[in-house]
Amino acid sequence: MEPIELFSYWRSSAAYRVRIGLNLKGLPHQITPVHLVRDGGQQHTDAYAALNPQELVPTLRHGARVLTQSMAILEYLDEVFPDPALLPHDAEGRARVRALAQLVACDIHPLNNLRVMQFFGDTWNVPAPERDDWTRHWMRVGLEAMERMLVESVDTGRYCHGDSPSLADCCLVPQLYNARRFNLDLAPYPTIARIDAACAALPAFDAARPEVQADASA
Amino acid sequence: MEPIELFSYWRSSAAYRVRIGLNLKGLPHQITPVHLVRDGGQQHTDAYAALNPQELVPTLRHGARVLTQSMAILEYLDEVFPDPALLPHDAEGRARVRALAQLVACDIHPLNNLRVMQFFGDTWNVPAPERDDWTRHWMRVGLEAMERMLVESVDTGRYCHGDSPSLADCCLVPQLYNARRFNLDLAPYPTIARIDAACAALPAFDAARPEVQADASA
Repeated sequence: MEPIELFSYWRSSAAYRVRIGLNLKGLPHQITPVHLVRDGGQQHTDAYAALNPQELVPTLRHGARVLTQSMAILEYLDEVFPDPALLPHDAEGRARVRALAQLVACDIHPLNNLRVMQFFGDTWNVPAPERDDWTRHWMRVGLEAMERMLVESVDTGRYCHGDSPSLADCCLVPQLYNARRFNLDLAPYPTIARIDAACAALPAFDAARPEVQADASA
Repeated sequence: MEPIELFSYWRSSAAYRVRIGLNLKGLPHQITPVHLVRDGGQQHTDAYAALNPQELVPTLRHGARVLTQSMAILEYLDEVFPDPALLPHDAEGRARVRALAQLVACDIHPLNNLRVMQFFGDTWNVPAPERDDWTRHWMRVGLEAMERMLVESVDTGRYCHGDSPSLADCCLVPQLYNARRFNLDLAPYPTIARIDAACAALPAFDAARPEVQADASA
């Protein structure tokens, strides 16, 4: 098998998604840390920008192929290493899983990530408590909708879609890690919390946790 | 064929993506307008929230199936109506097209959409010129990276990937419509501008333009 290298930062929730996906598929891989703050942000070095012009993590190298964007990477892994699948086999189910994943990946996470917080702090001088309110606001808006989508669907199982983890769970679990960092009350989202707990019991999710990464700070 | 209904707002760039996709595939469909500002935002009515708990456009109804999230909808359409394809057939090409699409759909558009502007105006009292600066900032950051990704790849053709329009073009063209609304200088992105012009020459893109929608305001 061609080597797989993941450029990751322990606390990046986008990198965390891909770590989960690699683990679920049992794919051996090397993790290369990219520290998003140290050295002015190692993602901004010329060497890294040559791999990923967006200067964001993650990037995945598979043999000579260099891939960016966490969801595009997970879809690629699912196509090249189809077993176990991260997407169901029916088009309607695939659309549901992708919609749940994109709810997190398009409508919560991009509003709350590091570069946005840096813009608020550096350009607008928004005080930290207000930045945190902003972060929790978009988490609440997104998770409320996701809870409804999960409660109202017969397709919801032990995980977001049925009884095996999917792309949606790969996105949800890192988002909940962020929610806890910001002390968001998760009581209004019992289905989400139940699914998160089910995922946490799986070794693939456990080994992807930020705290157990080699580059985690104390 | 089962009927297709798209819940759309003329100026929503996420709805605009799906309009392009439906047109490229030549799929007959009904457009149901959802006015994002009138009546306090028609996306917040109980009837619409029952279809789309995120209270965002677009939503697509195909027979009895209700789908949300523009990229999940486009992937669904590509799976159910595969010809002409919105994604290439090789995994690496598919990953590239998805990464370009997600660069827009995850890393530019969510930062600039209506609900974010409303938060800045209503909660933080950010003046309009600063809101516009924010909008243009994320457009520049994203488009600079996209220009590099397009220039540096031999896979870039008449369109973002080769010589037929893809999911990436469905996302890029509405983003450029937004860029022009905010008077962003497009001179630094000649490849993007060239691809945009190539798309504009296609009837599928032309008929999806905001200005020619039935619900467009004068």
